[in-house]
Amino acid sequence: MRFLHTADWHLGKQLHGYSLVEEQEDAFNQIEQLALQHHVDAVVVAGDIYDRGIASEKSVQLGNQMFARLNRDDHLPLLVVSGNHDSAPRLATGAPWYADQGFVLRTTLDDCLTPVTLGDTQFFLLPFFGLQAARNFLGQPVKTMDEAVGQLIARMRGNFDSTKHHVLVAHFFASGSLRTESETPLEVGGLGPVSLPQLECFDYVALGHLHTHTALRHPKIKYSGTPVKFSVGEARDQKGCWLVDTTAGTREFLPLTPLHDVVVLRDKFAALVGPDHPHLDPETFVAVQLTDKGIIPDAMNQLRQFYPRVIEMTRVNGVTPAPRKIKEVQRTAPLDVLTAYYEDVAGEPLSSVQQEIAAAVLGKVEAMHDAP
Amino acid sequence: MRFLHTADWHLGKQLHGYSLVEEQEDAFNQIEQLALQHHVDAVVVAGDIYDRGIASEKSVQLGNQMFARLNRDDHLPLLVVSGNHDSAPRLATGAPWYADQGFVLRTTLDDCLTPVTLGDTQFFLLPFFGLQAARNFLGQPVKTMDEAVGQLIARMRGNFDSTKHHVLVAHFFASGSLRTESETPLEVGGLGPVSLPQLECFDYVALGHLHTHTALRHPKIKYSGTPVKFSVGEARDQKGCWLVDTTAGTREFLPLTPLHDVVVLRDKFAALVGPDHPHLDPETFVAVQLTDKGIIPDAMNQLRQFYPRVIEMTRVNGVTPAPRKIKEVQRTAPLDVLTAYYEDVAGEPLSSVQQEIAAAVLGKVEAMHDAP
Repeated sequence: MRFLHTADWHLGKQLHGYSLVEEQEDAFNQIEQLALQHHVDAVVVAGDIYDRGIASEKSVQLGNQMFARLNRDDHLPLLVVSGNHDSAPRLATGAPWYADQGFVLRTTLDDCLTPVTLGDTQFFLLPFFGLQAARNFLGQPVKTMDEAVGQLIARMRGNFDSTKHHVLVAHFFASGSLRTESETPLEVGGLGPVSLPQLECFDYVALGHLHTHTALRHPKIKYSGTPVKFSVGEARDQKGCWLVDTTAGTREFLPLTPLHDVVVLRDKFAALVGPDHPHLDPETFVAVQLTDKGIIPDAMNQLRQFYPRVIEMTRVNGVTPAPRKIKEVQRTAPLDVLTAYYEDVAGEPLSSVQQEIAAAVLGKVEAMHDAP
Repeated sequence: MRFLHTADWHLGKQLHGYSLVEEQEDAFNQIEQLALQHHVDAVVVAGDIYDRGIASEKSVQLGNQMFARLNRDDHLPLLVVSGNHDSAPRLATGAPWYADQGFVLRTTLDDCLTPVTLGDTQFFLLPFFGLQAARNFLGQPVKTMDEAVGQLIARMRGNFDSTKHHVLVAHFFASGSLRTESETPLEVGGLGPVSLPQLECFDYVALGHLHTHTALRHPKIKYSGTPVKFSVGEARDQKGCWLVDTTAGTREFLPLTPLHDVVVLRDKFAALVGPDHPHLDPETFVAVQLTDKGIIPDAMNQLRQFYPRVIEMTRVNGVTPAPRKIKEVQRTAPLDVLTAYYEDVAGEPLSSVQQEIAAAVLGKVEAMHDAP
């Protein structure tokens, strides 16, 4: 059988204050079209449907519509687990009725050992869970996520039908994966990484949690990544979803085209606002990395004339002033404050001539201050 | 056909800080049993399923379980509309799938003109709505709730099948109804009362919003009231739900028994804590109305020894001190402050002897204060 593997929709997510609803709807439309074009037998969503446990009404409407489109309009079976960003009880609303239509939504460990069989494949659905939930379910004092997943998989294997292929759908941090800056780290209090060897009994592991599909380079243990770029660090990331064929034993990454891209512009200020500046769709999310050393008055406002959605401006040659503590500044001699400030802004120290002038001016100021 | 009419479950509601989850579960169990015993063909819930738009995870679990019990376990058709306390988009989650199983959940005006036919009866489901939603739906500049409902009913009548009975399920304030203290008033900005004559074209109107079934005394326009007492003002209220038989044209109020009652004890303090004090289930919610005039030190703590769930203590003979403004008190002569305070607490003025003593003491205090 053939399925599409997506995850981490994070409906309601914002990018530096910008709503991503349009981008998320567009990416969803592409996923739906890919599912239909490739005649998949199911769509798998490996957690983090919503960005927050208490999703906004708008986000809930969006999520409800997406699931209804795939399952009710397109008649596609759906296999969905909750992620660490979802409220499991809220997401679970409707689940018993969904199952009547082949939309299997799992938010607790209760049924994780019982596979959902579609065609020649058994799917084991493992939602995000905490260690206490694992201890209650297993009746074992497991101490790490790795141990918990290991014990769960050992029990799943007892239900393996050897004539079928086996797929695990899960939401956790797999050992050796690389992060992006838009994820919420999980590895606190024993929720550490899950080691890969114990996952290799599956023909495919459809993971959610990490936001780029290249986070883990393993032939059959895959993150799908998010359908939309959620951070500047993902600017060069190719978003998409996996097309998995369990019968043929193939997996292909199908790219999605961003509606409004996230782009990094790294150049001198003059080049970015001059006649030959990059001509971008005005709705592009732009991170500007200025290579200049000097002070540029009102830089952000000027950049916004050319790139209305500047989401970040950094000075890559070290001129961004570092925040200083007031008390520290108060204890520092005026000339040292000036010297440090100049270095912060200009990226180089005062020359000896500049130092002389600065010392002379500060001397006069102090003399005025000391006068009665 | 025969149905049960309930409303205003307000899952998540608290009574003076006490969770009512147990009471709500117990009342639900009774409603379910009544539905089964009376072999009803449907259960109608006329809005305010949840107490808050953002219901707690626990409340959402409870609501999901209740609907699953009635619809999936008991195979009862459900007709549900959203109330002013519900978040319509959140409550709507799952609705398209519910409908496959005869659980019709309506949260917008979209389908309000299209009846749901069960046996010999057409049900029109009208969720709570704001005037702007009505204007958008009707394409008319309606100014009041009465006008909006009138226009909606006029259109519903166009879909009346004259061989059927007609029931309206709605959530609004019907003209001439009496309030209890646990409702959130709706009548602001044109959301005024809906007049009764225009509702009389229905064989039965199943209303939600007001919390007692006696709020409106009309033979066929009924509030069900809440299944649980939500305020001290409802202490003597009989909670229950309506059993409606459209074929026979009958309606019968079926009482529910409170798991833990709300009781008002009005007596002298000594009687309430003396050897012959009322012996109540310790989980009873008790509102104490003291008839004493004198000050009773530590009254609340003493009462809690006998009634662990005292939710309110009032002094019915006027001894509760009225709040005074600081500025007002500062402008008042000390003797007048004392006199007023004594009256507040004791419920009677200072006697002439008391006045003399008070004046003498205050005179000494003032003399001390004026001394250098």
